[in-house]
Amino acid sequence: MLHKQDDCIMVFQDIFRTIQPLATKEPKMKPKNKLNRVLIVGGTHGNEFTGAYLIKKFEQFPEQIHRSSFETVTLLANPQAFTAGRRYINKDLNRCFLRQNLEDSTLSGYEDLLAQEINHLFGQNGETPVDFILDLHSTTANMGLTIIVDNDNPFNLQLAAYLSYVNPSVKVYSSGNSGRSHNSLRSLGRFGICIEVGSVPQGVLNADFFLKTEAIIHTVLDYLELYNQGKVRLFSNNLIFYKYIEAIDYPRNEDGAIQAMIHPQLQFKDYEALNPGDPMFLTFDGQIIPYEANSTAYPVFINEAAYYEKGIAMCLTEKQMITVE
Amino acid sequence: MLHKQDDCIMVFQDIFRTIQPLATKEPKMKPKNKLNRVLIVGGTHGNEFTGAYLIKKFEQFPEQIHRSSFETVTLLANPQAFTAGRRYINKDLNRCFLRQNLEDSTLSGYEDLLAQEINHLFGQNGETPVDFILDLHSTTANMGLTIIVDNDNPFNLQLAAYLSYVNPSVKVYSSGNSGRSHNSLRSLGRFGICIEVGSVPQGVLNADFFLKTEAIIHTVLDYLELYNQGKVRLFSNNLIFYKYIEAIDYPRNEDGAIQAMIHPQLQFKDYEALNPGDPMFLTFDGQIIPYEANSTAYPVFINEAAYYEKGIAMCLTEKQMITVE
Repeated sequence: MLHKQDDCIMVFQDIFRTIQPLATKEPKMKPKNKLNRVLIVGGTHGNEFTGAYLIKKFEQFPEQIHRSSFETVTLLANPQAFTAGRRYINKDLNRCFLRQNLEDSTLSGYEDLLAQEINHLFGQNGETPVDFILDLHSTTANMGLTIIVDNDNPFNLQLAAYLSYVNPSVKVYSSGNSGRSHNSLRSLGRFGICIEVGSVPQGVLNADFFLKTEAIIHTVLDYLELYNQGKVRLFSNNLIFYKYIEAIDYPRNEDGAIQAMIHPQLQFKDYEALNPGDPMFLTFDGQIIPYEANSTAYPVFINEAAYYEKGIAMCLTEKQMITVE
Repeated sequence: MLHKQDDCIMVFQDIFRTIQPLATKEPKMKPKNKLNRVLIVGGTHGNEFTGAYLIKKFEQFPEQIHRSSFETVTLLANPQAFTAGRRYINKDLNRCFLRQNLEDSTLSGYEDLLAQEINHLFGQNGETPVDFILDLHSTTANMGLTIIVDNDNPFNLQLAAYLSYVNPSVKVYSSGNSGRSHNSLRSLGRFGICIEVGSVPQGVLNADFFLKTEAIIHTVLDYLELYNQGKVRLFSNNLIFYKYIEAIDYPRNEDGAIQAMIHPQLQFKDYEALNPGDPMFLTFDGQIIPYEANSTAYPVFINEAAYYEKGIAMCLTEKQMITVE
C-alpha cells in the first residue's frame, strides 16, 4: 500500500521557498549575461549516493527541474564508479579537469578520458556549453548543508549568500586557494557552486540529506530563473564565509602509516572554533596532540573518508564576515 | 607537545571493569575445556578501520593483550583490501569460509586463497588452532555496541550475557539462521563472538568507537582469563536477545535499480520497535511504503552500506528475553 508522502518533502521545500516572493520586489538586478543552459551533476564520486540518486530521479521526472528561461541538463558523471560503489575506478574524476589534462591526447585512464568527454560535451568550447554547474556531493564530515564556492566570482557569491539568507543553517565554504577552481568538474561552467552535505557514509543513501539537497536544488533553479527574468532583488547581505587556509594531515610514521585519530572532542565539530591548545588528535597510545597555532581556526572536512589517501585529516578555514553587494 | 590522555580511555575502561571483581565470587564455574589460544581479528573488511587499526595497535603493544593463561594472537585479515580502503578485492572474505570452499583446490581468487591460508593457520586442523575468535567489525547502521553470536553455544551466550550485564548499553544480536555460523571467519574457532560498532562510515577511524571497542576487548580477555582459572561466577542472567528473522531488500525496478530509500523516520532506529503500518521506505517520488506484517519487529543493519549489493536494506529481528544459565 502506498501513501502520499507530504510531510518531509513539504517541510524542506517550505523552508526554502517562503522567502522567495520577497526576492521579486524592486529594486531588481538586470542579468548581464542570460543563462541558457544549467547542468546538474551528481555521482562525480560514485559512492556519494545523494547526488547520484537525485540525478536518477531527475532523469525519471525531468519536468521537476524544468524552468522556462533556460535548459536544465543532468549528468551522472562517473557511471562505472557508481555501479562499483566506489569513489572512482582509476583516479579521482574531480581532479581531472586541469586544462593541460583535458588537452593531453596521450592520457588513457578511464577518468582521464571521461573528463575529456565531459569537457567535449559541456565545456565552454564543447557541443552544448553550460553556463552554470550545480555540483552535488556528500561527505563523511559533519558539514550539514554546505555551499562551496571556488573563487570570488560575484555571481556565485551572491547565490551562496541568497541560499544562506533563505536558510540560515546553510554554511558557505570558500575553497579559495585549494586548487578546486582549476581541476574540478564544475570549473567547466562559466558559473557554478557545489552542494556538499554530511555526515553521510560513502555508499549510503540518506533520505534526510536527499530531501534537503533536492530542496536547495529547486531554490537554486528558481533563483536562476529570477535572475534571467531580471527579478532578483539587489540585496546587501552580510555573509559568514569560511575561507580555506590549509589542509592538515594525520600524524604518520616514517612509512606513512597513520599514528593518531581525530580527537573525540574534535570529531563532528566542523565549523566550530578550534583554539590554540585544543585537542586535535589522539595517538594510539593515548597521547593528545593539541592544535598548535597563534589564532583560532574553523576546521571543515574533519575525518572525510576520501581524504585519508590525499593526506588530509581536515581543512582549516578562517571565518569572515563579508558583504555581498 | 604531548599530554597523557587519561579521560577517554579511563572512562570506558572503568565502565567495563568495575563489576569484574564480583565475577570472582563463589560459586565458580569450572572450565570444561581450557582455552589455549585466542585470536583477535580485524580488517576482515578492509574499509572497517576500527578493527584494523586496533590490530595495528596490538601489534605495536602486544603486552596490552597478554594474559597469563592463554596465548593471544592477532590478525589483520585482509591486508590488500585495507591498503586499498575497500571492503574486499574480489569477494567478501567473510563469506569465504564454507567448508567446501576451504577444501576446494580449484579456487584462485585473492580472498578464496586468503581464507584457505587463514584456515590453514588458525582452523581446528591448522598449524596453531584457536579456541576463541574475537572478530572486530563496524557498520554504517546505528547499532551502537553490538555483540553478535552466530549460534546458541552456551559459552558464547554466557560471555555475551556477561558483556551486556557489565555494560547495559551493549546489545546482543543472534545472527541465527542467516548463515553466518557457516561461512564467516570466526566460524573457524571453537568459540567466538563479533563486536560490531556503529554508525561509522566505511574508511573512517572514529576514536570514540575505537576506545569503546578496545574496552570491550579487554573485558573479554579478562573474562577468558577468569574462565581458564575457574573463577567465572555462575550467574543466571536475563538477557535481551535480538534474533534474526529475515533480511528485507530495497524496493527495486525490473533492472534491479533501487526505487526507494530508508524512510527518515526509520533511519538510525536500529533495535527500536517497527510496528505494522510504520513507514519503512520512501520512494523517489515521495510515496511511503509501510511495514506490512502482523507483528512488531526490531530491525538492525538499517542502511548498512555494504549490504546494498547483497540486497539487504535491513535485517528484522525478534526481541526475546532468555535466561542464560
